[in-house]
Amino acid sequence: MKILVLGAAAGGGFPQWNCSCPNCRMAWEGDPRARPLTQSSIAVSVDGTRWALLNASPDLRQQIARLPALQPQTIGGRHSPIATVILTNGDVDHITGLLSMREMQAFTIHCSDRVKLALDKNAVFNVLNAQLVTRRSLPLNDTTDVLDADGASLGFTVTSFVVPGKIALWLEDLTKADFGSIEGDTVGLKITETSTGKSFFYIPGCAALPAEVAARLEGADLVFFDGTTWTDDEMINTGVGAKTASRMGHMWMSGPDGSMAAFDPLGIKRKIFIHINNTNPVLIADSSQRKDAWARGWEISYDGMEVIL
Amino acid sequence: MKILVLGAAAGGGFPQWNCSCPNCRMAWEGDPRARPLTQSSIAVSVDGTRWALLNASPDLRQQIARLPALQPQTIGGRHSPIATVILTNGDVDHITGLLSMREMQAFTIHCSDRVKLALDKNAVFNVLNAQLVTRRSLPLNDTTDVLDADGASLGFTVTSFVVPGKIALWLEDLTKADFGSIEGDTVGLKITETSTGKSFFYIPGCAALPAEVAARLEGADLVFFDGTTWTDDEMINTGVGAKTASRMGHMWMSGPDGSMAAFDPLGIKRKIFIHINNTNPVLIADSSQRKDAWARGWEISYDGMEVIL
Repeated sequence: MKILVLGAAAGGGFPQWNCSCPNCRMAWEGDPRARPLTQSSIAVSVDGTRWALLNASPDLRQQIARLPALQPQTIGGRHSPIATVILTNGDVDHITGLLSMREMQAFTIHCSDRVKLALDKNAVFNVLNAQLVTRRSLPLNDTTDVLDADGASLGFTVTSFVVPGKIALWLEDLTKADFGSIEGDTVGLKITETSTGKSFFYIPGCAALPAEVAARLEGADLVFFDGTTWTDDEMINTGVGAKTASRMGHMWMSGPDGSMAAFDPLGIKRKIFIHINNTNPVLIADSSQRKDAWARGWEISYDGMEVIL
Repeated sequence: MKILVLGAAAGGGFPQWNCSCPNCRMAWEGDPRARPLTQSSIAVSVDGTRWALLNASPDLRQQIARLPALQPQTIGGRHSPIATVILTNGDVDHITGLLSMREMQAFTIHCSDRVKLALDKNAVFNVLNAQLVTRRSLPLNDTTDVLDADGASLGFTVTSFVVPGKIALWLEDLTKADFGSIEGDTVGLKITETSTGKSFFYIPGCAALPAEVAARLEGADLVFFDGTTWTDDEMINTGVGAKTASRMGHMWMSGPDGSMAAFDPLGIKRKIFIHINNTNPVLIADSSQRKDAWARGWEISYDGMEVIL
């Protein structure tokens, strides 16, 4: 399997359009230690010609422009190597890219029933012609063959499983407990190559690591995991927000209650942070936090990163 | 008034994500004659510190990254020079950028009641906090002071007027005449500097030039006009679509029924094509069509173009 990181940043990207926090200031000023990043999404292919996007970020057009593998491969007419989009939730930074996938292109969308309902209710997504773009249901805790628009397998399966999280910001209901979130509003994905059984996990949003999720990940070859913040109160401390990481539905990396500590006993061969918020000090190339993460066996993903499994 | 062209291309940009037409092929291959373009939008400022976007394209994040005037001007915290967004219709290439304007930023949206209704009905736009982002109604054929989030004038007015057009693709109702389009689904904008009375027009979509629209434009200092295609059947001839320009709600440039001929008698001082489709031969730097357009007194806009009025 080949994996391409289209974007490594959390919602809003890095730098964020209206942010002047210390990290963003460095990026706006072109400091080479603060490399700009687009919003999180990865692409996976088994056959090297048909690709699945895991989430479709608002920056998708820009991401395709940088990655020849995702550009039309024909001479003349319409073509795209992108055969399907698999969604982990309904966040705008995960679904907005669908609005850039118009122009009479056949592909499939795999998502939970809750996300499907959200797409169905928002007519703006009708810009994707329903005769060409099929919305397939991804049952929770079940394994599904990933299919292209012709119903042919891409050569791998997806298993979607519940992770602690929060409903998408734009779907929050402040009158309800937990903002109206229910189980399955955020899922993790396990991608398994059919011919070899090799697999990896993609979990860009995850608020905690309960025993049942940890058990799934134990001994895995490769995990892309939620790297939103370094500390829980980072957005408050950098003066750009009032919300903690927990309030936004994300684990933080550092300390005894952070994701790095939670992963330590799991024996995972390759651990890569993705969905990294603009405020996170690991974004800065020479930061002590980035060195700490490396020392703990974590890689920090970046736009254009390639992983072979 | 200062005007910045954020993007010059029609919906989908140039090259388009799934297009291999001769123009896009050149752009994918990096031919310097085929300069890539983001999707159409311009920014206007009178005071040089607060800017109005005319439409918010899906490429807005990328466009801000290229234009320092639109980046945060403070050290620390949140800030954006973008004070308002004025919409000409509900096309995804004109409204999707709103989804990138999150993160607790106050600004205003000026749009027609029809577009406002479409935004209101699509909950995904609730990602813009209603307590910070006010949706203001732009009455047809009327002149309105353009206001920022504090209710302060940006120093210019906007007059929105009906132009022949078509309802946004995703709002089309195939059971109705004209796909359910009604008057005002597409508008042209006249921007007038309050202190000097200087004005220009922004008309990125326009299906024909009836006498009443022509009369408004007569003798204008500056008009940005719909440059979608060179010929009516261009998408068909380039093998990438079945729709004519007319079907998509756009005039074409060339020939006795084209926009250049229609504009000839109007005595407009500066004429600039914008919203240029990927198939249009004027996108190619050394094309005979671009030379023809120049010879007829038209400029072809490009990303980053600056105009002072």
